[in-house]
Amino acid sequence: MTEVVTDDLPELWTHEPHVHLAFKPGDSVAAIETNATPGFQGSKSDAPDLLLERSERFAQLQEMLYANSLSGDTRKVLLVLQGMDTAGKGGIVKHVVGAGNPQGIQYANFGKPTEEELAHDFLWRIERKVPTPGHVGVFDRSHYEDVLIVRVHDLVAPEVWSTRYDTINDFEKRLTLDGTTIVKVAMFVSLDEQKKRLAERLDRPDKFWKYNPADVDERLLWPRYQEAYQAMLERTSTDLAPWHVIPCDRKWYARLAVTELLIEALEGLDLSWPAADFDVEAEKKRLAGA
Amino acid sequence: MTEVVTDDLPELWTHEPHVHLAFKPGDSVAAIETNATPGFQGSKSDAPDLLLERSERFAQLQEMLYANSLSGDTRKVLLVLQGMDTAGKGGIVKHVVGAGNPQGIQYANFGKPTEEELAHDFLWRIERKVPTPGHVGVFDRSHYEDVLIVRVHDLVAPEVWSTRYDTINDFEKRLTLDGTTIVKVAMFVSLDEQKKRLAERLDRPDKFWKYNPADVDERLLWPRYQEAYQAMLERTSTDLAPWHVIPCDRKWYARLAVTELLIEALEGLDLSWPAADFDVEAEKKRLAGA
Repeated sequence: MTEVVTDDLPELWTHEPHVHLAFKPGDSVAAIETNATPGFQGSKSDAPDLLLERSERFAQLQEMLYANSLSGDTRKVLLVLQGMDTAGKGGIVKHVVGAGNPQGIQYANFGKPTEEELAHDFLWRIERKVPTPGHVGVFDRSHYEDVLIVRVHDLVAPEVWSTRYDTINDFEKRLTLDGTTIVKVAMFVSLDEQKKRLAERLDRPDKFWKYNPADVDERLLWPRYQEAYQAMLERTSTDLAPWHVIPCDRKWYARLAVTELLIEALEGLDLSWPAADFDVEAEKKRLAGA
Repeated sequence: MTEVVTDDLPELWTHEPHVHLAFKPGDSVAAIETNATPGFQGSKSDAPDLLLERSERFAQLQEMLYANSLSGDTRKVLLVLQGMDTAGKGGIVKHVVGAGNPQGIQYANFGKPTEEELAHDFLWRIERKVPTPGHVGVFDRSHYEDVLIVRVHDLVAPEVWSTRYDTINDFEKRLTLDGTTIVKVAMFVSLDEQKKRLAERLDRPDKFWKYNPADVDERLLWPRYQEAYQAMLERTSTDLAPWHVIPCDRKWYARLAVTELLIEALEGLDLSWPAADFDVEAEKKRLAGA
């Protein structure tokens, strides 16, 4: 069995990203500096090479997690992405998670619930998509929609959504006890940056498909969303499954930061390549004669 | 709406790969030159740059397929990978399919069937994993296991497996009529190359997890597998879903070839970016005021 050489955090980071990004009691959504780059002392020009290098580290760890599942390790990682429209969830999926091997990645997207989904408890559709052993799962939106858009648009009564924070904490505790490391990422852009990004979608025919007229209506509800995000962070950032708040006006920063959060989560599992469950020397002889 | 500029096939290919790789009646599995590079006039040193360039083309088309599904296009692509151990299925998943966006990729792996799966018809577990609209699905092994390993190891009676070729053709016809473009890829390595690759797995502790002592036993059954592959190719290479035979002693060739087959399949759909289903100018004004 070989030991894993753990790469050190690149010097361009002053601290492990979670130190700066973890939501802390008292933090205010209204006060998030969405164009900041907490903990990172490099610049945009450093980003492409660094992302490539750290993506390879992520991919290596992800493969190691998968390899271990073949010999019975049931652990898995779940990345939960929440954020306003244009915050860059899609970019994280494409440029961060996309560095992994499709064999070990499980992607799930939670849009408007179907009739069948609505006929069940709000966690029913979520349960069906939790990652299986050895996988890195990604939720592109998640069960948190049920305390965000649902709360803002009064889609259920306050007596209903208000119970969901505790329900979610119980659910995530159960996943954690089952061997899931949960990495929760809340992505924030400024209203100005959002306007810029929506305008770009309207300027480029290859981006029309990403534009939804409802996005403009949602902008007008930003104060209510802020309130909903604030409650979400306060009530569901737990020791087992803390929230990270990512400033996303600079896409390159958000991608670097989430890559590091995934690497931290995977390194926390102390993975190594699984030992052979066969006699290596005997197999070499058998192979030579076959 | 913008027209898609279709990249031309790179000059290093003399023909579109399917011309050389499509299985033709009379072709013999025993005669496959596994170290050949049919239709490719470049060399190994050309491969990395070319794969990168063509992977981007694949990723662009894959995203376009996904984008169209959001406005109701139900088409999808299914890549079926079959091949002996070490032929390089995993490398295709990682290095070819991995260039796509996890949002639009659906990966499924078919190993030894579970008890629940065995309690159903052999296509039951397959049906559950066929790609949904807008996606590129990948089958890492597939329903063809049921006429390969199952036939070679007499896991069901000949009266049973012998009916499956027609059943599979009917099934694939149904998928095709439902808008699925099926790309079937049979991957072959020589026994010598296989021995080399298995030996490497035994030499590298980071590869032990990919080694299975049963692989050596399967080598001894190669003549029976050849016979089973021959029957599979002859009986299930149809106009709607033809087989491609990929020589895989050179991994770089196999990856380039499968990338081109996927690009061909996607280009065959004549995709373009979907038109806006909203009034672009009106939205620009609305956004400016929001």
